[in-house]
Amino acid sequence: MTTLWGGRFSTKLNEQAWALNTSLPFDRRLALQDVRGSIAWAGALQKANVLTETECEQIVDGLQAVEKEFAEKAFVFAESDEDIHTAVERRLGELIGAAAGKLHTGRSRNDQVATDFRSWMLDSLPLLEDAIKGLQSVLLALAEAHQTTLLPGYTHLQRAQPVTFAHWLLSHFWSLQRDRERLQDLRARVALCPLGCGALAGTAFPIDRAALAQSLGFDMASPNSIDGISDRDFVAEYLFCCGLCGVHLSKISENIVLFTTAEFGFIELSDAYSTGSSLMPQKKNPDLFELARGKAGTMIGLLTGFMATLKGLPSTYDKDLQEDKVPVFQATDTLLAILPVLAGALETMNVNKERMSAAIDASMLATDVADYLVRKGMPFREAHAVTGKAVRAAAEKGLSLDQLPLSEWQALGPFEADVQQVFEVLKSIEKRNAIGGTSPQSVKNQIRIAKLKIKGD
Amino acid sequence: MTTLWGGRFSTKLNEQAWALNTSLPFDRRLALQDVRGSIAWAGALQKANVLTETECEQIVDGLQAVEKEFAEKAFVFAESDEDIHTAVERRLGELIGAAAGKLHTGRSRNDQVATDFRSWMLDSLPLLEDAIKGLQSVLLALAEAHQTTLLPGYTHLQRAQPVTFAHWLLSHFWSLQRDRERLQDLRARVALCPLGCGALAGTAFPIDRAALAQSLGFDMASPNSIDGISDRDFVAEYLFCCGLCGVHLSKISENIVLFTTAEFGFIELSDAYSTGSSLMPQKKNPDLFELARGKAGTMIGLLTGFMATLKGLPSTYDKDLQEDKVPVFQATDTLLAILPVLAGALETMNVNKERMSAAIDASMLATDVADYLVRKGMPFREAHAVTGKAVRAAAEKGLSLDQLPLSEWQALGPFEADVQQVFEVLKSIEKRNAIGGTSPQSVKNQIRIAKLKIKGD
Amino acid sequence: MTTLWGGRFSTKLNEQAWALNTSLPFDRRLALQDVRGSIAWAGALQKANVLTETECEQIVDGLQAVEKEFAEKAFVFAESDEDIHTAVERRLGELIGAAAGKLHTGRSRNDQVATDFRSWMLDSLPLLEDAIKGLQSVLLALAEAHQTTLLPGYTHLQRAQPVTFAHWLLSHFWSLQRDRERLQDLRARVALCPLGCGALAGTAFPIDRAALAQSLGFDMASPNSIDGISDRDFVAEYLFCCGLCGVHLSKISENIVLFTTAEFGFIELSDAYSTGSSLMPQKKNPDLFELARGKAGTMIGLLTGFMATLKGLPSTYDKDLQEDKVPVFQATDTLLAILPVLAGALETMNVNKERMSAAIDASMLATDVADYLVRKGMPFREAHAVTGKAVRAAAEKGLSLDQLPLSEWQALGPFEADVQQVFEVLKSIEKRNAIGGTSPQSVKNQIRIAKLKIKGD
Amino acid sequence: MTTLWGGRFSTKLNEQAWALNTSLPFDRRLALQDVRGSIAWAGALQKANVLTETECEQIVDGLQAVEKEFAEKAFVFAESDEDIHTAVERRLGELIGAAAGKLHTGRSRNDQVATDFRSWMLDSLPLLEDAIKGLQSVLLALAEAHQTTLLPGYTHLQRAQPVTFAHWLLSHFWSLQRDRERLQDLRARVALCPLGCGALAGTAFPIDRAALAQSLGFDMASPNSIDGISDRDFVAEYLFCCGLCGVHLSKISENIVLFTTAEFGFIELSDAYSTGSSLMPQKKNPDLFELARGKAGTMIGLLTGFMATLKGLPSTYDKDLQEDKVPVFQATDTLLAILPVLAGALETMNVNKERMSAAIDASMLATDVADYLVRKGMPFREAHAVTGKAVRAAAEKGLSLDQLPLSEWQALGPFEADVQQVFEVLKSIEKRNAIGGTSPQSVKNQIRIAKLKIKGD
Repeated sequence: MTTLWGGRFSTKLNEQAWALNTSLPFDRRLALQDVRGSIAWAGALQKANVLTETECEQIVDGLQAVEKEFAEKAFVFAESDEDIHTAVERRLGELIGAAAGKLHTGRSRNDQVATDFRSWMLDSLPLLEDAIKGLQSVLLALAEAHQTTLLPGYTHLQRAQPVTFAHWLLSHFWSLQRDRERLQDLRARVALCPLGCGALAGTAFPIDRAALAQSLGFDMASPNSIDGISDRDFVAEYLFCCGLCGVHLSKISENIVLFTTAEFGFIELSDAYSTGSSLMPQKKNPDLFELARGKAGTMIGLLTGFMATLKGLPSTYDKDLQEDKVPVFQATDTLLAILPVLAGALETMNVNKERMSAAIDASMLATDVADYLVRKGMPFREAHAVTGKAVRAAAEKGLSLDQLPLSEWQALGPFEADVQQVFEVLKSIEKRNAIGGTSPQSVKNQIRIAKLKIKGD
Repeated sequence: MTTLWGGRFSTKLNEQAWALNTSLPFDRRLALQDVRGSIAWAGALQKANVLTETECEQIVDGLQAVEKEFAEKAFVFAESDEDIHTAVERRLGELIGAAAGKLHTGRSRNDQVATDFRSWMLDSLPLLEDAIKGLQSVLLALAEAHQTTLLPGYTHLQRAQPVTFAHWLLSHFWSLQRDRERLQDLRARVALCPLGCGALAGTAFPIDRAALAQSLGFDMASPNSIDGISDRDFVAEYLFCCGLCGVHLSKISENIVLFTTAEFGFIELSDAYSTGSSLMPQKKNPDLFELARGKAGTMIGLLTGFMATLKGLPSTYDKDLQEDKVPVFQATDTLLAILPVLAGALETMNVNKERMSAAIDASMLATDVADYLVRKGMPFREAHAVTGKAVRAAAEKGLSLDQLPLSEWQALGPFEADVQQVFEVLKSIEKRNAIGGTSPQSVKNQIRIAKLKIKGD
Repeated sequence: MTTLWGGRFSTKLNEQAWALNTSLPFDRRLALQDVRGSIAWAGALQKANVLTETECEQIVDGLQAVEKEFAEKAFVFAESDEDIHTAVERRLGELIGAAAGKLHTGRSRNDQVATDFRSWMLDSLPLLEDAIKGLQSVLLALAEAHQTTLLPGYTHLQRAQPVTFAHWLLSHFWSLQRDRERLQDLRARVALCPLGCGALAGTAFPIDRAALAQSLGFDMASPNSIDGISDRDFVAEYLFCCGLCGVHLSKISENIVLFTTAEFGFIELSDAYSTGSSLMPQKKNPDLFELARGKAGTMIGLLTGFMATLKGLPSTYDKDLQEDKVPVFQATDTLLAILPVLAGALETMNVNKERMSAAIDASMLATDVADYLVRKGMPFREAHAVTGKAVRAAAEKGLSLDQLPLSEWQALGPFEADVQQVFEVLKSIEKRNAIGGTSPQSVKNQIRIAKLKIKGD
Repeated sequence: MTTLWGGRFSTKLNEQAWALNTSLPFDRRLALQDVRGSIAWAGALQKANVLTETECEQIVDGLQAVEKEFAEKAFVFAESDEDIHTAVERRLGELIGAAAGKLHTGRSRNDQVATDFRSWMLDSLPLLEDAIKGLQSVLLALAEAHQTTLLPGYTHLQRAQPVTFAHWLLSHFWSLQRDRERLQDLRARVALCPLGCGALAGTAFPIDRAALAQSLGFDMASPNSIDGISDRDFVAEYLFCCGLCGVHLSKISENIVLFTTAEFGFIELSDAYSTGSSLMPQKKNPDLFELARGKAGTMIGLLTGFMATLKGLPSTYDKDLQEDKVPVFQATDTLLAILPVLAGALETMNVNKERMSAAIDASMLATDVADYLVRKGMPFREAHAVTGKAVRAAAEKGLSLDQLPLSEWQALGPFEADVQQVFEVLKSIEKRNAIGGTSPQSVKNQIRIAKLKIKGD
């Protein structure tokens, strides 16, 4: 027994060439999709009168036996199995004999593998979405619990303005929400069934491709057979979605790495989500967040690599396209490994509200000082300059901004004793009450909308 | 002269540091969006009673004067203009005096630049879509004209099965269609208005952000101010869409480069879309297609670079995000330069039908020979092997497959005299009549659907 | 069972977190390097009087037993083995008892893993170089055999000027030569031994790091412990070298894919290095070259991904660096799989000299026509224009350039009957006799130099 | 007047096609190199008796006049100038008449542009090296000044072990040193002169390419004309070197961004290298370091993009290669802008030694506690566990590690009163005295070696 294509060849493939060529080490992951695709194809062939009812039943029974072997991890691969398709067809032949040879009528591995891979991705998309939703839910629950927890907000990693911790947590909710929306948009571009495109020109038998597509859970049949067997946009787009999700996780992770430093001290991870050092007994490291951050880089590379592979290929199927599976499997496994771990780590972390609150120094209310002047009628640009001078004056005196004596304030601008009220942090926060602002009322509204998103609005 | 932020600083920025820091060389491209955003902001401030009606009018009049200067290319930048926002506010001050200083109340450059950039992209998306549609239309018109033009179909760049040229042309229509659909999906993620997010915590004035967003042509206000000022997903997604579109153009280009070789000879480009050699007088080169192919690589790099920039950034605004504009402008300009040129080159090329048709040798119908045996009841796998032997036998005899004598055929399998009919190319094509197949009838249907897509179905 | 660091922790690592954190699935590949590094470390500890001679012997004997287990594939990993270092130390403890606990004195996994990985790469570099040299040797042998085989030379994939096949083959020799030179330059940057850098601050015991480095085959000890444990330049540079080598192979591959088309027909691959189609019995595909071409994209992604991982990391060891091994192993395996296969495929291919020679049409000598005029005193720029007109005149008449009647030539410029001699291909080639030119004499000289390069000049 | 290649064409290039095709907007930067290359070529032609002495003089004089126009910014480009080569030849013709038409004899733009670009890079390499050296010098001077300044060393951004600030500064010295070494290695691969390779086959005139190469400052002539005109390895390698240097700068920058936070507070930037906020008057932002960090991403993209462009190209010159210049210019300008600014910012920053020193808490000496036990004979692995328990005990009691009462120590292991001495930071540092360690003596030695590297050892 050999390959599916030996007829015209006088010698076997060189051994090293075989090793380079075989896709079985990774496409075996498509086993179930391959069997199911073949069952559907047998049915379509029968409807097209290419198979008799008996032949079709024989084939379907045989394929179900193969599927069972895979499910029970009892399937034995042969050395001669070039890929998962060959393996399934070989095994089918062993089980049912000559009728197996009729299964490949009118199709090609080109349309077969594209169908298998898209099926696999249709199965994978909800897993990814659920994992993302899992992390979103943790962020949302934490946000509900921390609606009045104060956090210094940073820009350029410099203390900028106070916010609530809830608001910060929700900022990550929305980036993950976009990840889910992108995956949802992608689905329609995955759910085109290439089966029946043949090698490139379409199948020469009267297959009802629309019915076939639906029977396999696709939305419709791909509209052009050349495009059908060569389109790998869905792979690139999937890798992009994964990569950008990875970037979002790297942002959360960078923050957690910062927040767990001795210097920030805002968060302590639970022991169940921390690691230590082989040398330094005191160390408690946020390795899991560092891994999440680092793997974002790796996932960017998966996307880049595949797009570079696609670049400059001529029309239809080229073997280069075989590079499509490994990065998709790797990106999927990476995200499915990271997402629940980050969720667990966030859920179990200890939030040090006192450190967070203590880190809000008076200078973070400088914008409020300027706004105070604006409310007294001074143009903002002037108010900004006046406040800047106050900041500098305080710094030069070694005072915090709220310690600046009234006389100093008044030397700089039309300040009155009520300037002190500007330094009440919660009041500053409550003023940011427009849509999307950090005021508790705005955040409560934000939480309400976020819940609808989780419920699937 | 000063920056918008000098108050607290004792010395000016170092000159080289200024040169590194300034964004004016590229963000001046946002001038109109910046002015319009400021006009809308002034209106929102007035509705919130931060500006009087008179102040608002003054500001709006001033900004319209500034807009006019930009439109007439009469705007003069000052050396001290750090970015487009500073330039506009400075000029406004020159035109209307102190009231200009009230415009920046309650907003930050963080929300301002994000708003400007998203506005710009909302303007850019339809331009890109139109340019893509332009190329699609050329492909569609060519397909209509070439419904019976025969072309050898390739896989692995080896002759595989005959198709129509129309079918091949349409295969590229569909990849471009996906590009447009991706851009359409992206729009919803661009059309969130960050104005009113302030520096990161939201604005401290009672701005009606929903109304503000709509007045600027956005769908809604961004739901979280921290996310609002730091989200650059839309940039990455835009660069991905451009990059993948570039990859599609590289595929068309690779094919045209091949088809215009002396060896293929299927297509000759018009002189208006060809270039020559400074040394070799006979050369006629497909430079434009090579540039399109090469620029796909460059655009992959723009995407990669920006994702790498985003990776690992902490929350909210970091100056790293300033790297967002140059790649977006570059990708846009690249596609808007390539798309019409490829459209023009395809529209004016000469199609050598004879060379195309002559390149369809008999062996390309080997699948049809196997199907012939299938129709006689032989399992396909066996039929494939038998046909493979026939191919080899013909090759060894130096014959083309259709020249193999009947006796040879019959030595190999249950062939009869009618095997010769298999070699009628058009019949082979007509058999591929399922959805998406290359048969003229299928292709006619495909053209009908493609037209609906162009019309905006 | 425990990790190397459990002392300070109250609970075990969460199971999913463990799965994300463990590096054993890939760093087990460093087993031998890890054992050898530990043997050297034990020796260094003994020389520093941290271990007694007896303890050192015990440890070394134990480690040699562990090495033997690895060599015989008898080593059994435990579920609790977090990484290869833990596995080795655990097993050592099982074999020799408490003394094993002394081995990790004064070192950290930070310097240990960097040492192991650099050792591995020092072992890997000559393997890569040899594989490249293997392909160079095939190219060189082919070049020797094809010094007078004529090939149309292309620019822009348009026929340009005739060259010898040898010259073309050698052009790839030189790109591979640069790959080897880059790997040789890289070696010095790999051969710095980090052992003794400890966690980041250096070791607190009086280790002779220079001697230690040499005993492990390194050139010297790394000069700064912080840099020593965090430097991954060698990884990025290795991935770059691999990626660019991959690009070179993609260029060879693109050419072979073209040359094996029916249209070019210059080369036929042997059956031992070709594959077929599951559907189309006539197909003989250059899959191996397509895979080589496609994998260049993947390797570009490995480089990109790792550089993106490095970007923005703060000083010293961050767990993100654990992403360094998988891409290096993958790039290495890819090149070691591709290089011998391409060598074998080229060595066994059939070169169709007649097709190559026949593809040299007269217009490819247009530059020689212009040079003819130059030799008659016409400025080249004018000669180019005149020849361009001749090319156009011939094309309009449906003639090849050498069929243009003398009268036509003379209507265009100072041509005489001897213009016909211009069209002798070999003469044209012989004229290109400067260094690096395609004349047989120049090529002979090139072959001589190439041989010296292979011999290690 | 038109292009250099119009002769064979019946119509002019379409206007949009022209805009896409022209390289003048960026290759004008090669003006001086192009003129000098042409001067050298004229000399070579004369030596080969293709030009008379008079013609050669005429051409050289003309080219020197052109060079002067460029130097004085008086050169006027024409709309018809397709690229810099065309512009120079056109202008030469205007200045000296017909003889100008003889200059392009025996060369092609393919070898010409490769020569110009390599010449440009040979000029650029020392500029880059000097800029890197400038930053190294600042690091080195700071290191000399901070040999006893204490800094908490971090791993995983968690406090790990104390080091000196000098040691930390030098760690960045060495990564920059590798950047310079890589650029030095690269030089040999740039310094091959392609002039005389012609279009691809070599020149048909007896040019002394070795002498020509030397006259232009190259090491030697490229050994194969096909490789000579198509090799762009030097571009990819240059972009890699720049990208990795960018990554190093991103590491410095990430640290400075951290160190200037209120939370770390180790460093304050001078006002001349800081920026403020348009909204928040108190802000002082490390924008320049953020830009350096962000631009590392962009530079990774330049590398990636160009490698993707190269991937899959067939032999010799394809127009895709025109994408080589923009990224090289962009990477160069980026580094030449960043390097001196970072140098200036580091040179003028204020180092807060007290904050640095105060951040070294007692737990950072836990490794020293374990080493204390090792010195008392306990195996390190056990000592690590015991110390871990002490860390936990102290944490549970709310004590710092050095505050743990002796009784507690003794309950855990063989501690004596001298355990307190472990907590003297300087002593811990002094123990790390092996090569590359953080002890002042080791660092002094490191500084000595670093100075030799700067001097050019």
